Formats: sequence, C-alpha cells, structure tokens
Amino acid sequence: MVPELEWIEGGGITSPAGFRAGGIYTGVKTYGDEPRLDLGLLAWQPAAPVGGLFTRNAVTGESVRWNRRLLAAGRPVSALVCNSGNANTVTGEQGARDCRRMAELAAERLGTEAEQVLVGSTGVIGRLLPMEKIEAGLRSIELSEHGGHAFARAIMTTDTHPKEAAVRFALGGRTYAVGGCAKGAGMIHPDMATMFGFVTTDAPADPAWLQETLRAVAGRTLNMLDIDMDTSTSDTALLIASGAAGGEPVRDGHPAAAALAEAIEAVARHLTRELARDGEGARTLIEATAVGAASVEDARRAARTIVSSPLVKTMVVGRDPNWGRVMMAAGRSGARVDQDRASVWIGEHRVLDCGTPTPIDLSLVSRAMAEPELSIRIDLGAGGSAEATAWGCDLTEEYVRINADYTT
Amino acid sequence: MVPELEWIEGGGITSPAGFRAGGIYTGVKTYGDEPRLDLGLLAWQPAAPVGGLFTRNAVTGESVRWNRRLLAAGRPVSALVCNSGNANTVTGEQGARDCRRMAELAAERLGTEAEQVLVGSTGVIGRLLPMEKIEAGLRSIELSEHGGHAFARAIMTTDTHPKEAAVRFALGGRTYAVGGCAKGAGMIHPDMATMFGFVTTDAPADPAWLQETLRAVAGRTLNMLDIDMDTSTSDTALLIASGAAGGEPVRDGHPAAAALAEAIEAVARHLTRELARDGEGARTLIEATAVGAASVEDARRAARTIVSSPLVKTMVVGRDPNWGRVMMAAGRSGARVDQDRASVWIGEHRVLDCGTPTPIDLSLVSRAMAEPELSIRIDLGAGGSAEATAWGCDLTEEYVRINADYTT
Repeated sequence: MVPELEWIEGGGITSPAGFRAGGIYTGVKTYGDEPRLDLGLLAWQPAAPVGGLFTRNAVTGESVRWNRRLLAAGRPVSALVCNSGNANTVTGEQGARDCRRMAELAAERLGTEAEQVLVGSTGVIGRLLPMEKIEAGLRSIELSEHGGHAFARAIMTTDTHPKEAAVRFALGGRTYAVGGCAKGAGMIHPDMATMFGFVTTDAPADPAWLQETLRAVAGRTLNMLDIDMDTSTSDTALLIASGAAGGEPVRDGHPAAAALAEAIEAVARHLTRELARDGEGARTLIEATAVGAASVEDARRAARTIVSSPLVKTMVVGRDPNWGRVMMAAGRSGARVDQDRASVWIGEHRVLDCGTPTPIDLSLVSRAMAEPELSIRIDLGAGGSAEATAWGCDLTEEYVRINADYTT
Repeated sequence: MVPELEWIEGGGITSPAGFRAGGIYTGVKTYGDEPRLDLGLLAWQPAAPVGGLFTRNAVTGESVRWNRRLLAAGRPVSALVCNSGNANTVTGEQGARDCRRMAELAAERLGTEAEQVLVGSTGVIGRLLPMEKIEAGLRSIELSEHGGHAFARAIMTTDTHPKEAAVRFALGGRTYAVGGCAKGAGMIHPDMATMFGFVTTDAPADPAWLQETLRAVAGRTLNMLDIDMDTSTSDTALLIASGAAGGEPVRDGHPAAAALAEAIEAVARHLTRELARDGEGARTLIEATAVGAASVEDARRAARTIVSSPLVKTMVVGRDPNWGRVMMAAGRSGARVDQDRASVWIGEHRVLDCGTPTPIDLSLVSRAMAEPELSIRIDLGAGGSAEATAWGCDLTEEYVRINADYTT
C-alpha cells in the first residue's frame, strides 16, 4: 500500500534532509530590469548517486558535456553549481576550460574536488562566461538549509517566478522527503528533460534505480512539456538522493520504492505544470490529453503535438473554439487517427462526436476558454486504450515581443 | 543543352495553351473585410494526365480523399474546381457527398463527368459547405484564357495577394510554357506539398514522368517551405500537362525533358518564395541554406528546422543577430552537426567560424537583418558536401493577432 503524500508548504530542493543551497547576484545575467540572482550552488554530504538526463540536441552546452562525462564515470557526486544568463554553448575550447574552472571554484569553496561537482549554465548561446564574476560569486555565496529558494531564483532566465515543490511521506518508521525546482520559459521542447529540472530526496537510493525512475517519470512529465517547439542545448534533469533519511538504498522490491517513485513523479508533474503556466508571454495553461490511442507512443505524440501547435496556441489566446486545429495537430503528429471515429472536447464541451461536429453553442465553449487553465481532450478513435497528457501554453503577442528583444 | 527560360510578365496558370479558368464570389468565404473571390474553376481540353501530391496529415479534407481516388484510377482528367473559406474537412458523410456534388456541378457546367474533375477546398475545418452558394457560383462562373488571375485570387485564404508565375522556352521548333499559382499563408508546413500549388504546362507529358518530376521538384521547393510548422489537412500540389503545344509526350530521354523539368522547378521555386514572403504577419522572407551536410536529407532537415524555429523567427523580427538560435535549431533538427567545426552566416556576415564566434560588430549584422529578404547559411561541419535550401518568414505579433481571430 502506497502511503499518502503530504505537500510541504513553501518546500523546495532543500526540503529533503542533507541538502544546503544558496544563490547570489554576480552580474552574469545582464538582461532584465533589475539585478537578479544568477549563480546558485547546491551541496550535499556525503557524496551521493545522481540520475541524469540531458538534451538530445546535437549542439550541447559545455555543462551538458561535463555532466555527461561525470555521471558516466559512475562515482557519487556532492554538488551542483549553476549560472543563468549565459549558456556557455558554442564557445569553443575556452568554453570547455571555463566550465571546468567553474566546477573547480565550487569544489574549492566546498572542500571537495571538481570531479564531484555538476555544472549547469543557461542563457544566451555563443558568448564566453565572465569568469571573474563567477569566481567572485563563488567566494561569497552562502549556503543554508533554507537556501533552496535562492537557488531556484538563481537559475531563472525569462521565468517570471521560481518553480518549486516538495512532498513527504512516512513509511516503516521513517519519513522521506522529495523536493524540486525547475526553470525555463522559452526554448522549451524537452527531448530528454526540460531546461533545468532538479529533484532531490533524502531517501537513500540505488544509482540504477534512480536513473530508471528519472527516465520513466520524465517521460510522463518533463518530456511532455512544450512551450515553443525549440529544444534547448542545455536541457538537464537531475535526481539526487542524499540518503540522509537513513536505511537501505531504495531499489525495486524495497518497501518504499513505489511511494518514492510516486513522490518524485508528483513533484516533477507539479514543476512541469508550473513551467507551462509561466511560458514566455503565456496567459493560459493548456493540458492536452489523448485517449483511444493505438499505443502510448501515439498518445504522447498526439498530446504533445496539440500543445505544440501554433494554431492551437493562437486559438486559445483568441478564446476561439476552432477545434478543427486540434484535429489537424493530432493528424500531423504521426499518431494513428481515425477521423471518422474521433471525438474532441474543449474544456467540458464535446465539440466533435465520433467524426461528426456536435450542434453545441460555440459561444459557451469560448467562455470556457477564458479560464487560466484549459483542458483539451481528444479520442483518436484508433481503437486502442492508450492515453497520455501533455502541457503547454498559449502563444501571445507578448511571446514575440520577449523573443524579439532577448539579447539586445 | 537546356534552353534559356523566359519569364512571362503577368503570367499564371492559363499562360500555357489549352487552359481556361475563372473565379467568382459566392459567399462561402465569410471572413475578411470585403467580398473576395472564393470559387475557382480551371478547365482544359482534351482530358490530360495530372501528377498529384497530397498532405501526409492523417486527417485529410474530403477533396484530398476524392482527388487521391481519382488520380489512383489513372485516367486523364479535365478540370479542377476549388473553393476557399471552408476546408470541407472533418465534416462526416455529408462532407463526402458535398465534395462529390461539387465535382458533379462543375462537370455539368463543362459537359464532362464528375470523375474527370479534381476538387480543392481550403479554409476553416469542421463546417459543412454551403452547397447552394457553390451551385449558384458554378452556374454563373465565366472561363477564359486570361482567367488564371481570377482563379489565383479565388483560392486565397489569409493570403494578402495572389501568387502566380509563368515561363516559356523554345526547343526543336516548338514553344512550351509552364505556369502556376499557389495559396497559403498559415498552417504551412507542407509534408508533400503546400496548401495549394498548381502548375500547368502545354507540353504533352507521360503520366509517370509528370508524377516523378512533381515529386522531385516539390522536394526542393514546396516541401522546403515553412510558415508555422502546422501541416494542413488540405495540402495539394498538382502538375497538369494539357499537351496543347503538340509533339510526343515528354518522358526521360525526350529532348525537352530537362528544360521542362527546369521550367517546372523555376515556377515552383518562385511560388514557394512568394508563399514564404506572404506568410501570415510576415515582414521578412527568410532563406536558410545548410551546407557541409552528411546527406541531402540532413541538409533539408537542418534548413527546414532553421526556418521553422520560433526563436529564429523572432530573432529576425527583432533584427537581433542572436545566431546561437541558428545552431540550436540545426542541432535539434536530427541532422549531424559538429559544433566545433560549424560556421554560420547571417546575410553576408560570418558570425561563427569553425566553432568559434567571430569578433564581428553585431550592429552591422543587425542592420543587414532589416532588409525584406534575409539569408541564413550554416555549414554543419559534418564532413559531407550535401546542401539544401528552405524558405520561411519571421514570426510577428501580427501572426498571433491573425490566428487568434481567424474564425470568430
């Protein structure tokens, strides 16, 4: 029996025991109206196993290259240093040296070695990191058990607010916590993970179990998020298990395995929805569910394509129940669709019933579209029973303004 | 030796001999500020072979289903009737009957049979065609040898102007002409063809040669166009050879085969560029070329993804030389990219040289981006010599406005 999850109010990545974090303003992030935190450090003791997923974009940031090598080595790690405002991507050999130097500086600050420090850089592509600012920041950054909030702010780029969550559950005389934070409001079409999605737990865990759990959870959460179809070069999802709660490492068969996986998924799903809600220029969180699919893969394709479609997104911003665009998007997704058996719901309203438009008053549907969250549901009519949900947001004129002005 | 092509000023689909056309306002298209032509008829005598390519969207309009059956039968056809304002898609059994009725009405008007009439419907999805308007229109429409212009207007949806072109060349004592028209400004990410792209010629041609030539030409032209990543349910490309110029049917080995194929490609490329230039809300025509690719498929993927990327498109609207987004798009395209050997040009300016950013003054690059046409070039550094070009447009706030208000 899986115990009930309790949401921790004001929780985040330092809610699980064993983690300290902090954030500081160094000046790396030069855009925006006011100085905002742009360097974050998360540390845990002792060194612990980490599951990681990284972008499948063929062009990758130096931090992604660094982290892949680190995790491939299979040794436990003990810290994560991140900056926003600069992705350190397509920066040549100097970029690789800067990334390593960032890990070294963090390691010096923590009394560990560079090979135990993961790095995350997010922001503009093609510019060298101002290393003197990073160095100064890492000398003065302060860490605490409540520092998760500052860390969550430090990784933001065009996000309007930080995304954080944490849950806990009790089982077999122990209490376990799972926390997380994430960032990303544009260039969001994760192909392994979103820009940054970090989840921590104080449960001890087997490294292979961590990696497999992260992969499965991301497949249903972070990888089902789309804001603007562009896959970042920095996408990074990490799942870190400090072990501070004590006990045997969680793996398949462990009494806490199911509850821990569910807690991780709850936090990841919450972060995914918050990322979608805060998409650049977004006014509406769109949740698209595809059912009646021939396979889970088909259902995921259809749901993801619906939330990705510029014409569905603009239909939502216009409060326009032009549901033909939902059919168009499902049809181009690659999923099997039988248009003569398909049905579509906008909010609670069924607008297409087994291939035939319903005689519903579309002004009612339009009113339902004015809510801050809109569900779109499609039965693909493909005869199967697989389903999937994806999250996205509407496409507003504000998105265009934000991205036309991003680096200048 | 391929003879020189001569562009025909003010030319279009009725420039080749043997074609008559017309367009009329019937009231099918209810949006827009003023009555605009919305029903077009193109006819030729005698019945002739037609090459056709249709959308790969799993959801298709009734006209696409009708045309596929007609062309699969392999018999020559003699007319094409089109309406704009209503796609007759996801309209159930009544929609199928309406499509057939449209072909019958056109056949009655022309004294032929429904099985010789191709149909094209484009516009809003999910609404029944107002058949009484179509019927009245087909009774009164007038056809002429100069009617190609009216036809080109009648197929427009959110297009701001018609797209037409024609060329001619002389060879072996005969003169051949090739003409074309196209429409489509949104829901444009052709997966076989664009919304509508029609090419006519008075050359006689072998049906198999026509089909193969259309496929090859579309692969380099119409299928390399992207406006907003959404693939229409009505995409239709047709290549019609009236044979009025006389002589033996053109096929491989025919002395005119190379020149005719080149003329067809010139017209299709012109139409593709004009479609991109008139993309919904567009201010800038973007031409992206990928070179140094491991395969043509890779080059096409990279070029098409660059013109599709919302972040590249908004970079252009903001005149912001944020070329990292070009690398990001190439990287997520699925093409092989070596980021340490890649180079990028924005207009004439090389901004990335073999993986290293160049010290160019970015304000110069920004100025080059203010032109009505912008070329973006990437060397993928993948060691190959394959290349491809794709066309698209910038993403403006106007695109959002147009598509938020489309059906209401």
